[in-house]
Amino acid sequence: MFNGLKKKWTDFMNNEELKNKIYMIIYDTDTPLGKLFDVFLICFILLSVFIVILESVFPPSFKPYLHVLEWVFTVFFTLEYLLRLYSAPRPSKYAFSFFGIVDFLATLPTYLSFFFTSAHSLLAIRILRLVRVFRVFKLFSYWREGEILLQALKDGSKKIIVFFVFIVTLVVCLGTLMYIVEGGREGSSFQDIPTSIYWAVVTTTTVGYGDITPVTGAGRFLSAIVMLIGYTVLAVPIGIFSASMISEHKKHKAIPCPHCHRPGNEHDAVYCKFCGKQLHEEEKEEWEDKDPIITSDGEIK
Amino acid sequence: MFNGLKKKWTDFMNNEELKNKIYMIIYDTDTPLGKLFDVFLICFILLSVFIVILESVFPPSFKPYLHVLEWVFTVFFTLEYLLRLYSAPRPSKYAFSFFGIVDFLATLPTYLSFFFTSAHSLLAIRILRLVRVFRVFKLFSYWREGEILLQALKDGSKKIIVFFVFIVTLVVCLGTLMYIVEGGREGSSFQDIPTSIYWAVVTTTTVGYGDITPVTGAGRFLSAIVMLIGYTVLAVPIGIFSASMISEHKKHKAIPCPHCHRPGNEHDAVYCKFCGKQLHEEEKEEWEDKDPIITSDGEIK
Amino acid sequence: MFNGLKKKWTDFMNNEELKNKIYMIIYDTDTPLGKLFDVFLICFILLSVFIVILESVFPPSFKPYLHVLEWVFTVFFTLEYLLRLYSAPRPSKYAFSFFGIVDFLATLPTYLSFFFTSAHSLLAIRILRLVRVFRVFKLFSYWREGEILLQALKDGSKKIIVFFVFIVTLVVCLGTLMYIVEGGREGSSFQDIPTSIYWAVVTTTTVGYGDITPVTGAGRFLSAIVMLIGYTVLAVPIGIFSASMISEHKKHKAIPCPHCHRPGNEHDAVYCKFCGKQLHEEEKEEWEDKDPIITSDGEIK
Amino acid sequence: MFNGLKKKWTDFMNNEELKNKIYMIIYDTDTPLGKLFDVFLICFILLSVFIVILESVFPPSFKPYLHVLEWVFTVFFTLEYLLRLYSAPRPSKYAFSFFGIVDFLATLPTYLSFFFTSAHSLLAIRILRLVRVFRVFKLFSYWREGEILLQALKDGSKKIIVFFVFIVTLVVCLGTLMYIVEGGREGSSFQDIPTSIYWAVVTTTTVGYGDITPVTGAGRFLSAIVMLIGYTVLAVPIGIFSASMISEHKKHKAIPCPHCHRPGNEHDAVYCKFCGKQLHEEEKEEWEDKDPIITSDGEIK
Repeated sequence: MFNGLKKKWTDFMNNEELKNKIYMIIYDTDTPLGKLFDVFLICFILLSVFIVILESVFPPSFKPYLHVLEWVFTVFFTLEYLLRLYSAPRPSKYAFSFFGIVDFLATLPTYLSFFFTSAHSLLAIRILRLVRVFRVFKLFSYWREGEILLQALKDGSKKIIVFFVFIVTLVVCLGTLMYIVEGGREGSSFQDIPTSIYWAVVTTTTVGYGDITPVTGAGRFLSAIVMLIGYTVLAVPIGIFSASMISEHKKHKAIPCPHCHRPGNEHDAVYCKFCGKQLHEEEKEEWEDKDPIITSDGEIK
Repeated sequence: MFNGLKKKWTDFMNNEELKNKIYMIIYDTDTPLGKLFDVFLICFILLSVFIVILESVFPPSFKPYLHVLEWVFTVFFTLEYLLRLYSAPRPSKYAFSFFGIVDFLATLPTYLSFFFTSAHSLLAIRILRLVRVFRVFKLFSYWREGEILLQALKDGSKKIIVFFVFIVTLVVCLGTLMYIVEGGREGSSFQDIPTSIYWAVVTTTTVGYGDITPVTGAGRFLSAIVMLIGYTVLAVPIGIFSASMISEHKKHKAIPCPHCHRPGNEHDAVYCKFCGKQLHEEEKEEWEDKDPIITSDGEIK
Repeated sequence: MFNGLKKKWTDFMNNEELKNKIYMIIYDTDTPLGKLFDVFLICFILLSVFIVILESVFPPSFKPYLHVLEWVFTVFFTLEYLLRLYSAPRPSKYAFSFFGIVDFLATLPTYLSFFFTSAHSLLAIRILRLVRVFRVFKLFSYWREGEILLQALKDGSKKIIVFFVFIVTLVVCLGTLMYIVEGGREGSSFQDIPTSIYWAVVTTTTVGYGDITPVTGAGRFLSAIVMLIGYTVLAVPIGIFSASMISEHKKHKAIPCPHCHRPGNEHDAVYCKFCGKQLHEEEKEEWEDKDPIITSDGEIK
Repeated sequence: MFNGLKKKWTDFMNNEELKNKIYMIIYDTDTPLGKLFDVFLICFILLSVFIVILESVFPPSFKPYLHVLEWVFTVFFTLEYLLRLYSAPRPSKYAFSFFGIVDFLATLPTYLSFFFTSAHSLLAIRILRLVRVFRVFKLFSYWREGEILLQALKDGSKKIIVFFVFIVTLVVCLGTLMYIVEGGREGSSFQDIPTSIYWAVVTTTTVGYGDITPVTGAGRFLSAIVMLIGYTVLAVPIGIFSASMISEHKKHKAIPCPHCHRPGNEHDAVYCKFCGKQLHEEEKEEWEDKDPIITSDGEIK
């Protein structure tokens, strides 16, 4: 019997046809079944996240009911993970990819709670699966919009990194300065430099909780300067992103002329705005072929 | 007598001339009477909103006086609603339109307060009628500006939706993460995940009430990162809107073709991008006419 | 003696030469004396503002010393006001202009404090004279930058007004909605609709004091939506201003070609980028006139 | 012996070869040793900053251990400072440069703490050395991005200054106005004009700590207006920076002329705007060469 089972298992593991079918359903979004699976999966993820959120709100008496649901999700997610591993062309590549690790971690906590009671709090990791929700854009016509946004972010990423190094240096310097000015006093909320740096971040980003505020005149004067700096510095990432959004906008629209090679024709142009010749020659030829046919026949086809 | 009344009613309901007259006054803004009615209506709406606001501030002893005013407005709004229904070409279309429902809801609360004492608080619904105030733009020359703004918002709406899905996912993930880091502690303000998500929204949008703030070092470190992310992410909708405002700006500056009359040629175009003919021919011809005159006369005119 | 005084007074009032001299010093910024007067005036205004600020901080024992300074400033400002009236081509026009009223109000409080003790607090009106500080830009080369900024603001002003009407309507609606959701409760900080509208302004502008915060789940959910709306709406004025700044930027730079009439040549261009002909003909002719002179003389003039 | 030492010292001070070698290591980033030194230096600076931060957090019992580390850094920084002075072509120029003063101040506090116990708190000055961290961009390919950002800031700097003068005037006026409205009351947090100005800065920059908030109706109404002004004014620096970022963006995309080698031709230019020659001649010639070949051969190559 064990041999029979082993053979069946080997057959199952090498069943390329089945693998392809499952791959189509799980990984693809072009087939109707693939779309259905994606919609189903996204609903399941949203529901499981909802359960995790509810558990933190409800009194302990509700927990047994939520536990049942939790196990349902865990079993489903485990099955999905195993099928993904099974049908992936290179299982190890999937297992160590970002999504592979997230999918694995999402199933783990419930199993671990058998052995460690504290492991249950790890359930919140499941929320990371929300990232899969972005697949929803693929199902509708929003994918291209998302790609333009991503491209604009990527174009500006180097500038954003430079900006972040600058901001971190700035808040460390300003935080330390504030610690020197306000820190020594009795009952001051600027107890140590990390707290002061935290205050500098809260202030430059214009969040302003108000849990740590200056009380002396000098501290308030310095704060006002920090705020005005933050206010101006706020313009930097916006300027970066605006500039790359605008150039991305143009790139997706501008057509170069095949005659005078000048770029900059808008996407709805028919004739080049610089030399006056037609932009899309092939279409024109098609039209010219059709044209004599109409004249020889004396009627429109 | 009843038959006489019935006949009069039927006559009144089919009086197309009266209907047209009322329609002109109530729906149009081009005639002097229509304009007067709109100014009058906007004043009435603003006054009724003012009364609703005052009622929440004044001590109960003032209420009888306000009740009188409330009834005046209710009668006026009811009359207006009935006239709108009467004069609309297709009454059912108006009744189920956005403005139709708002107009109906605005009259309801006062009548309902006969039967239910608590219905009075619904009076605040009347504030929704404020939307009609935007008609004021039609009376002055600000309508086009509003349209440009709306168009820019519409152009960017798909990107804004993608951005919102991203933001919601982000705040759910960050809120849960913060709940894990700060939540377990005694006296922590991060009691449950929804509260933590609320905190994440307050923080990423840089509102920063300060009613929920991290107290541990790890929590503050995570908060600082959340703030810097929010700070950078803030750039995204601004970039989207700036880009579409700028392209909208250009479109409104665009030159129409004198041959095919299609608008949308860019300001630096020489040939129409739709029909391929020269855009500024007249100017050129003028110049060419002038040119031979100069050579034949031997002097500049 | 009285007649002699009267004659002198009439002579003084009709002394056009003296009037012109004083006008040059007080109103002009091109002459050295006019510049000196402006620098002196700005210093005096800043000092007087400084005294007003100091008075609110210092204990009453310091007041006699500050009173002396206050009288010095009042006498100087009164003298300046009278001279402005005297030398202005049309005194009544100056007296009722914005600056005329501000200058008059700035001198008044000290005199009024003779009669009313409470009039002293009006001294703060003097701070409005700070507006004159913007004259400092005229003295340096920053005037043009300020003009570009003002022009961009003026271009976008209609859109900004439309935006403000929208924002005011939005905060009234959101504030009332929040009052309905959170208002009825015991100990709620949403006592009445004006307070709720104030909260809506604090929240949509992302200021977020935290003096009024939602405590119920529904209130917090609504708040989160208000914040996200405010966050997106924030993009609107920025987009408006960016778009007009950019077009203002271009306008100050672009030169049209005198040959092909195409605009869009950059401010540092010598040859048209579309037709290749020289942009500044007059300059060229001058150069051509000079050129033969050099060759015939064999030396550079 | 003293003469021998003196001679050695003179030899050492005039050893140009050694100076050059040290200069290469300390000031250059192109050689492998120079790069290694920079990486090493940045790590040391980060570590020393880390120690300063730790010292403010740890209880006094840890201080002896941190003191040892502090001395290690001080000795290293002193050595580095002396070597910089030694190898600089003009030592006095380095000593009075920004970096020279920062490097000197960074070594001072530990030595001063011998004589003054309070001098120890000056150690935080060492954090200013963080500015050297920006050298890290030179090691990687981020330098150009940083330069674009700096250039954009420099382009907009005049406008930013005009904007700052405007903002300072605005907050002084608004702060004083608020002091008049809210200041006189018992228990008001608007105690004096500087505090009110501080509040105006906190509010216009949308930081909103909430430590000073209006409580009267008039005060709240004024606050709401201040917030809406701040909200709109926020758009100004962003617009300035966006506009200069975009024009900077274009400049870096600009095409250099193949004839006069001047950069700065826009991407849609046909003729160089400086020398009037065609920009894309080579492509055109190639095309012309190809053209006759086709006609003589009768077929396309």
